[in-house]
Amino acid sequence: MKPFGTVSLVGAGPGDPELLTLRAARRILDADVVVHDRLVPTAIVDLARPGARRIPVGKRAGFHPVPQDDINALLVDLAMTGAHVVRLKGGDPFIFGRGSEEAAVLRRAGIAVEVVPGITAAQGAAASLGMPLTERDCATGVRYVTGHRKGDAPLELDWDGLADPDTTLVVYMGAANMAEIAARLIAAGLSRDMPVLAVSKVTTPDEARATSSLGRVGADPVIRALPSPVLFVVGRVVALAEAGQAVLPEVALHAPHLAEGAHA
Amino acid sequence: MKPFGTVSLVGAGPGDPELLTLRAARRILDADVVVHDRLVPTAIVDLARPGARRIPVGKRAGFHPVPQDDINALLVDLAMTGAHVVRLKGGDPFIFGRGSEEAAVLRRAGIAVEVVPGITAAQGAAASLGMPLTERDCATGVRYVTGHRKGDAPLELDWDGLADPDTTLVVYMGAANMAEIAARLIAAGLSRDMPVLAVSKVTTPDEARATSSLGRVGADPVIRALPSPVLFVVGRVVALAEAGQAVLPEVALHAPHLAEGAHA
Repeated sequence: MKPFGTVSLVGAGPGDPELLTLRAARRILDADVVVHDRLVPTAIVDLARPGARRIPVGKRAGFHPVPQDDINALLVDLAMTGAHVVRLKGGDPFIFGRGSEEAAVLRRAGIAVEVVPGITAAQGAAASLGMPLTERDCATGVRYVTGHRKGDAPLELDWDGLADPDTTLVVYMGAANMAEIAARLIAAGLSRDMPVLAVSKVTTPDEARATSSLGRVGADPVIRALPSPVLFVVGRVVALAEAGQAVLPEVALHAPHLAEGAHA
Repeated sequence: MKPFGTVSLVGAGPGDPELLTLRAARRILDADVVVHDRLVPTAIVDLARPGARRIPVGKRAGFHPVPQDDINALLVDLAMTGAHVVRLKGGDPFIFGRGSEEAAVLRRAGIAVEVVPGITAAQGAAASLGMPLTERDCATGVRYVTGHRKGDAPLELDWDGLADPDTTLVVYMGAANMAEIAARLIAAGLSRDMPVLAVSKVTTPDEARATSSLGRVGADPVIRALPSPVLFVVGRVVALAEAGQAVLPEVALHAPHLAEGAHA
């Protein structure tokens, strides 16, 4: 019997292949199979060698999503063939996105699991915009929440706790519910003038951004027109965003294959 | 006159050189000067080419820290010589650590600034321990705060907002004040039994960890003995941490120089 393979839960980062970690890039390059969210850019999935299997799963407009239970079973089945499986997820596998559920199922099946962290979309946006997530004078911390609800269920968030003007609030998967989120934050005490930044497809060539305020964001036509996925940042740090930051040319280094692959 | 150089504010990540982003590794390899926090591991600083200048700044026990104003002035002076300067900071340059202040000073001086994000210590700890930072059933979000105080100033945190049992709380620079932080969180409503994880020197060969609870952490001798820096994670996700996770061998790839450098 072949020994069980391994599964690496790998964070693909916010979109730009250059923001993969060295370990993430190595794992993708070495994979027998890459099971990837559909939102992970092709340039990242294609770091895998030509003979590696690529299996897209997860949501994107126009595709029927693969149910989570089926993804879990697929990962177990693939690992049991002895393959080195990379499960490639946007951002960080252990911040939203059900990576912990996949890890738990695999471990219960006796399969070795490794987790490789990834740069979050929020960190990508901050770097791309020259906007800190914390800043001594206006943001003593940063908080990530999800604005997604299950079906018609109410958004169950601690609104009083969230309405802290000294904390930068990052809302993932909030596009559909941002009007309600903004209204509840205002009701809980945040100013209608608190700046809000919306960033679409952060750190990709299609990145688009718009700024608004809590009072306006829910009905802002520019923001509603931003293509999915959209990340929202609420807080005074938004006012610190630069119009743009320096873009340095990627230097040619002593790692030609990696450099080439990362830019593919 | 020579044109001004550029400054890349680069996140060194949590400690393991393999958790640098590809861009961060490229910037270090290409730097003329690396101005680094003393806590950044030598294995990362030494990715710089042999001829590059290395200038340690920042705090470490036994060293007089370079004042922030002096660091800001140093970065400006170095960039004005036309050098490509890498300012290498632990974790992410835009989450704590005054990266935004450095960026603002440089921009005011007319110098091009680029920000390269880094994996946070919290993400490194989560991956290293197989412990998610969010989890559908017990943590709807994650929050980073700093537990550092200026001199004798009181800890100015929104305790009621922080005492949310459904949010994972990550405390940076909290070792000196964790007894007070725990007491205030309990006073604000969190259970004395809420699990607390302390991780020292996360993702380095010297990583050490201990678990405790809010009721015990302030007086826990094992935790007080952990070498600095220590990161605290408060929340129900701590109970999901694995004893250890799979450690895969680093594979030899098509990028021998980068692989070698990263392991130096």
